[in-house]
Amino acid sequence: MSDPVPLCDVWRGDFLESRHRGHVVIAHVDDGPLATWGDAAAIVLPRSSSKMLQALPLVESGAADAAGLTTENLALACASHTGAAIHTDRVTAWLGALGLTEADLRCGPQMPEDPEAHRHCYCGGHAPGQVHNNCSGKHTGFLTLARHLGAGPEYIEADHPVQVAVRDAFEDMTGAPSPGWAIDGCSAPNFTTSVAGLATAMARLAGARGTGDARDRAGHRLIAAMVAHPDLIAGEGRACTDLMRAMGGRAAIKTGAEGVFVAIIPERRIGVALKIADGTTRAAECAIAAILVAFGVLDPLHPATRKRLDAPILNRRGIDAGRITTAPAFAKDLRRL
Amino acid sequence: MSDPVPLCDVWRGDFLESRHRGHVVIAHVDDGPLATWGDAAAIVLPRSSSKMLQALPLVESGAADAAGLTTENLALACASHTGAAIHTDRVTAWLGALGLTEADLRCGPQMPEDPEAHRHCYCGGHAPGQVHNNCSGKHTGFLTLARHLGAGPEYIEADHPVQVAVRDAFEDMTGAPSPGWAIDGCSAPNFTTSVAGLATAMARLAGARGTGDARDRAGHRLIAAMVAHPDLIAGEGRACTDLMRAMGGRAAIKTGAEGVFVAIIPERRIGVALKIADGTTRAAECAIAAILVAFGVLDPLHPATRKRLDAPILNRRGIDAGRITTAPAFAKDLRRL
Repeated sequence: MSDPVPLCDVWRGDFLESRHRGHVVIAHVDDGPLATWGDAAAIVLPRSSSKMLQALPLVESGAADAAGLTTENLALACASHTGAAIHTDRVTAWLGALGLTEADLRCGPQMPEDPEAHRHCYCGGHAPGQVHNNCSGKHTGFLTLARHLGAGPEYIEADHPVQVAVRDAFEDMTGAPSPGWAIDGCSAPNFTTSVAGLATAMARLAGARGTGDARDRAGHRLIAAMVAHPDLIAGEGRACTDLMRAMGGRAAIKTGAEGVFVAIIPERRIGVALKIADGTTRAAECAIAAILVAFGVLDPLHPATRKRLDAPILNRRGIDAGRITTAPAFAKDLRRL
Repeated sequence: MSDPVPLCDVWRGDFLESRHRGHVVIAHVDDGPLATWGDAAAIVLPRSSSKMLQALPLVESGAADAAGLTTENLALACASHTGAAIHTDRVTAWLGALGLTEADLRCGPQMPEDPEAHRHCYCGGHAPGQVHNNCSGKHTGFLTLARHLGAGPEYIEADHPVQVAVRDAFEDMTGAPSPGWAIDGCSAPNFTTSVAGLATAMARLAGARGTGDARDRAGHRLIAAMVAHPDLIAGEGRACTDLMRAMGGRAAIKTGAEGVFVAIIPERRIGVALKIADGTTRAAECAIAAILVAFGVLDPLHPATRKRLDAPILNRRGIDAGRITTAPAFAKDLRRL
C-alpha cells in the first residue's frame, strides 16, 4: 500500500502554499495499467464518476430502447448537472413520458448551481426540487430500468433489482468484486473499487466499439451520448462540460465528489481514474487536465484548460496572486508518457 | 523536512474516503514546542490567522488609543468577518470617525457570507462593497495606524510604514526573520513563517499578561478584545465565533485561508498553529477542535464542537452517510497530551 503522491500544487507568489496528493491509474483496454501514481489498489468511492457504469443496465437490458430514450436522455443518465433549465426540462419530460413525476425520484432536492436557476430558487423563494438534484438524470434512468424490470418504486435500496444489476455491471467492468458500498449524496448505493479497477472499467468503455456484445454496445452508446452532449453532462463553466467541448469529442470525462475524476479516450483505447486523497475538486480538475494534455487530446493553451491547469489565482482586487499547477515529479512523468 | 501527517479523516459509511494531512506545533511561551506533528519548519502563509500580529503596531504605537478605539474595533481589526450588518456598520462608523470612507480601503469588494447581507446584495442587485470584505476591520486598523504615523494612503505596499511595522512585529513575535511574503486575498502583504514560528507567536500572545512592555500590553488587549466579541471575529455559524462562544472566553482562535488555524490559550500560556497541507478548511476546523478538546477548554459534546469533530455528513435526503473526525494516530497522541 503506497501513500498518495503529490499531484497538484497551489502557489502563492513564490511560495508553495498547498499541495494535493492522490492516486492515479492509466489503463489500456488490452494491455492493462500503463502508468500508476500512488496506490493502484487504494479503495475508492467513485461517486458520480461511476454514472456511466450505473447506466449500463439501463441500455443493455433493452429498457432504454423500450422507453424510446434519446442520446440526450442517455447523456443525462451519466450527468452531474447544474440544474439549469436545459437539464430540468428534459428530466421532467422524461419522467412525464414514463407516467411519473418528480415525487417518484429518491435523490432528494438540491439547490441548483446554474446561476439563472439558482437565482430563481434562492431569490424567488422557490424551493428547489428533486429534478434540480445533479443526479436526477441518473435516477430517472433507474426508474426507467425499474419499470422495464417490473420492479418496485424503492429503486435505491441495495437489494432492489436495479441496484443488483448495477452492481453486476460494476463488478464485471472493474474486474473484481466490490468490497462494499456506501450511501451517495443522492442516496443511491455507491459501490467501491480500487483506483485500478475504476481505470480498468474506463478502459473498457474506451475500448467499446459498439459491434460486440450487449455490454460493449451499451458502453459505446453511453460514451457517444456523453461526447455528443457536453452541455448536459455538467453545465456552463463546469469542468466536464468545458473540457469535453475543448476536446471536440475526442474524450469523455466525468467528475465525482471528493476529488475523483475519470477519462475515457476511445482513440487510444485508454481509461484514466484518479482520486485526490484529500477530496478536493480543484486538484482533481488540474490533474485530469494535465493527463488529457499529455495524451494530446486537450490543448494546453485552451482557455478551458488554463482555467484548471497553470491557472492564475486572482484576489479580490483582481491581482494575480498565485497559481494552481501540477506537482513537478508528476508533470515530469506525464511528459514521458 | 518531514512530510505532513494524517490529521483528519472523512468517512463514508465504513470506508475511509478522504484524508487530510498537515503540520501542527503546540508551543508554551516559556518552554517552547510541547508537541509537533509533521514538519515544524514548514514555511506557511498564515493568511488571516496572523491578523492579531498585524494589529500589534496599531495598539503599541498608541494609534488605537489616539483614535479612541474600543474593544469592538480591536476585535474587528483581528476579524475575518462575514459582512453582516454588525460588522459593516461598525467598520463604516470607524472609517467615518477617521474622516475616511470605504473608498480609502484597499481590500477590494467581497460578496458577504452572512445570509441576510448576502441576500440583500445578491437578490437585491446591490454590489457588495469593500466594507463587506472579511478583512475590512484589519484594513481600517491599517488606515488608523497610517493616519497616526502621518503616512500615505497606499498602506498595503510592502515598504509602507504600516507594513514595515507589521513585519517588525511579526518577525519579533515569531522569533525569526520572515522568508518573504505573498499577496493576500485582501491585497495586503502576508508574511511567511514556519509552523513553529506561528505557534511561538501565538504562545507569546497566550503568555501576555498586560503588565509588561508595550508589545505585551498590546497582545493582551487584542486577545481580550477577541474573546469579548466572538460575534465580531467571524459571524454566526462560523467556526471562530461558534467555538470561541462554546469556550466562554478560555481561548481565542483564528482561521486563515488554505487550511490554517491558530489558537491562543492564556490559562495554559500555550499557542497552537496548524496548517492542513492541502488547504482545506473542514480539516483545519476538525483538527483545532480536537486540540482544544485535548486541552480541556472545549467541551467535546458541545454542538459547536460536534459540528466540526466527529461531525455527521448528511446527504441530500438528510441521511447520515459519513463522518469527519481526527486520524487515529493524531487522536491517540492528543489523548496523551
